[in-house]
Amino acid sequence: MTSTAARTPDRQVDFYFDFSSPYSYLAAEAVDAAAARHGHTVNWIPIMLGVIFKSTGSGPLTEQHPWRASYAVMDFKRSADMAGLPFAFPSRFPQAGHNAARVLLGLQKTAPHKAKPFALAVFRNLFVHDGDIQQADNLAAIGKTLDLDEAALLASIQDPVVKSQLVANNEAATRRQVFGAPTFFVGSEQFWGHDRLPHLERRLAELAATQTGR
Amino acid sequence: MTSTAARTPDRQVDFYFDFSSPYSYLAAEAVDAAAARHGHTVNWIPIMLGVIFKSTGSGPLTEQHPWRASYAVMDFKRSADMAGLPFAFPSRFPQAGHNAARVLLGLQKTAPHKAKPFALAVFRNLFVHDGDIQQADNLAAIGKTLDLDEAALLASIQDPVVKSQLVANNEAATRRQVFGAPTFFVGSEQFWGHDRLPHLERRLAELAATQTGR
Repeated sequence: MTSTAARTPDRQVDFYFDFSSPYSYLAAEAVDAAAARHGHTVNWIPIMLGVIFKSTGSGPLTEQHPWRASYAVMDFKRSADMAGLPFAFPSRFPQAGHNAARVLLGLQKTAPHKAKPFALAVFRNLFVHDGDIQQADNLAAIGKTLDLDEAALLASIQDPVVKSQLVANNEAATRRQVFGAPTFFVGSEQFWGHDRLPHLERRLAELAATQTGR
Repeated sequence: MTSTAARTPDRQVDFYFDFSSPYSYLAAEAVDAAAARHGHTVNWIPIMLGVIFKSTGSGPLTEQHPWRASYAVMDFKRSADMAGLPFAFPSRFPQAGHNAARVLLGLQKTAPHKAKPFALAVFRNLFVHDGDIQQADNLAAIGKTLDLDEAALLASIQDPVVKSQLVANNEAATRRQVFGAPTFFVGSEQFWGHDRLPHLERRLAELAATQTGR
């Protein structure tokens, strides 16, 4: 169920997500605090779920059987309520997340302290404020609220090195048999779904207990 | 997302399940206590998930893409561990649950106090003790541990009235847009999955607060 080709470093959680995924938004709001409670940090790894779905023959929840699709839309909101997070299903859905992912990857290299705040701002723009995260100018507007360099932000979207990094992220996710988002890894152990954060925390607590010799 | 054709009575949770579903087993071990904490009882409704899947074009988790299937098998055990329940993935899987469902439906009419204990014994036989719940004689052996009338038990499996009841359960589930198991209803509100028991409890707590005028 997990590949031996990749392993998350000690005391780090790998967090694979797609900006267009509602459950990824809920996870993004919670995963750093969950990991920190057990002495771990989180490596945020944007991927393109559409590419993953081509490997697995799957598709977005909202494009599955109508009963399941309408249940999913209701469950997004219910899960957000349960987590105490605001949520409004976007009027444009799904939205392609590759531009936002590229900006994030650029920031991770050039201004890493702004990377997670930008990612959270993108998620909130889409899933709280019904924004459009596909267009470069809208991403620039989000960046402006964080005092990001607009020229650098727009350059990331066209940067071939950044584009290659996003492709590499998708390939790494595929090697690790990621089939949905969000997906977390602790070492080679895979956890899929916002609703598995308690399972992730349980494992991190076990590891913390082992590492402190208890 | 829910049909207006059916509504669970006040202070009752409808619990749709399939005996061959691992997450149904986990739910069966917990749902009565969860409901009771908020003044509700639970109506156990066996269905044939294979019939439901014909409506929705879906299938068992273990027959989906290999990455997801192997993840599911691991998640069954992890979810059981998280819930403090024993679990061992059966060597024969999936198993047809219609005979067990018919025995349960017979008991619900003739010996209702034995119905839930029988259902739990079937689930544990399959998911803890690697049993075979398909064969009538194995179900009779399970019944024996509960002092059930063996002749009546075996008769239920062939009883046309009981068979019709199981068909009616599947039809009711379909009308309510059930697409997986376990599924719970509170009124017309649908909750899908063992992992949504906390959502169910949250809703029951809200209802209890409303009904007591708080």
